[in-house]
Amino acid sequence: MTQKSFQDYYPDAMAHCYGCGTLNEHGHQIKSYWDGEESICHFQPRPYHIAVPGYVYGGLLAALIDCHGSGTAAAAAYRTAQRAMDTEPAFRFLTASLRVDYLKPTPLGMQLEIRGKVKEVKGRKVLIEEWILANGITTVRGEVVAVQVPVEMVEALLKGN
Amino acid sequence: MTQKSFQDYYPDAMAHCYGCGTLNEHGHQIKSYWDGEESICHFQPRPYHIAVPGYVYGGLLAALIDCHGSGTAAAAAYRTAQRAMDTEPAFRFLTASLRVDYLKPTPLGMQLEIRGKVKEVKGRKVLIEEWILANGITTVRGEVVAVQVPVEMVEALLKGN
Repeated sequence: MTQKSFQDYYPDAMAHCYGCGTLNEHGHQIKSYWDGEESICHFQPRPYHIAVPGYVYGGLLAALIDCHGSGTAAAAAYRTAQRAMDTEPAFRFLTASLRVDYLKPTPLGMQLEIRGKVKEVKGRKVLIEEWILANGITTVRGEVVAVQVPVEMVEALLKGN
Repeated sequence: MTQKSFQDYYPDAMAHCYGCGTLNEHGHQIKSYWDGEESICHFQPRPYHIAVPGYVYGGLLAALIDCHGSGTAAAAAYRTAQRAMDTEPAFRFLTASLRVDYLKPTPLGMQLEIRGKVKEVKGRKVLIEEWILANGITTVRGEVVAVQVPVEMVEALLKGN
């Protein structure tokens, strides 16, 4: 049995995101999991996700931080509520603010590891700290403030309104 | 005669970026221009650049802020040096740090306007303030710290090293 990722639990009506939606055939379809207290995601950039020859384009790295962060926030909300991720109402988070520090160029041509950690929960806001590793070396640090989507809005989306 | 964009002046060896490289056939190929003291870029997200139905995916917005910011930094460096953008050595900037605040959801299905302004120049670092408008309403604010790529590195890239 293969472990389901956080994104595999998103309801279909909320699974269109270019970064993390399982239904977006053009998108990145990232998959995030728990690894103890941290969340983890692996992603192999395509050859055309280039900045300058040999290195990954920063916009992709920002997108990975963004979607892995909002996924981690949702998973953390289920953990805090001691609920399984397939129970309703669905917890979904949107990114309110994103910060990315490019510490060094990220080499292209290898699988990257994106890691996340819940730093703070303040009401409906969750602060996620993240970092990206290439070959075991941290090349990017990021921070996401994710905000829980109100249940009524989730329900409206589920109804297609 | 059509006005050339900042990105049209990037040397071929540095024109591969997924966000702004004119030679990246898979990429966004954004085009930035001066509009008085501000820089401007128009971009029409594709239908699959979706977050939840009706709205643009945040990772794309971060990428637009990123590449329009580094392009604006390069153009500003030429302006400060009172040099035309087709003169050598080429000024190129990479993003050291990126901050994006999603003020409200950005509607999908229309052309977006990305605006930038040089806020501070500190040695090789340029701080660019940016914002994205949809239908005249600011939905995103961003900040990019761009760092000038050392001339030797630009030359090495031009030589294909």
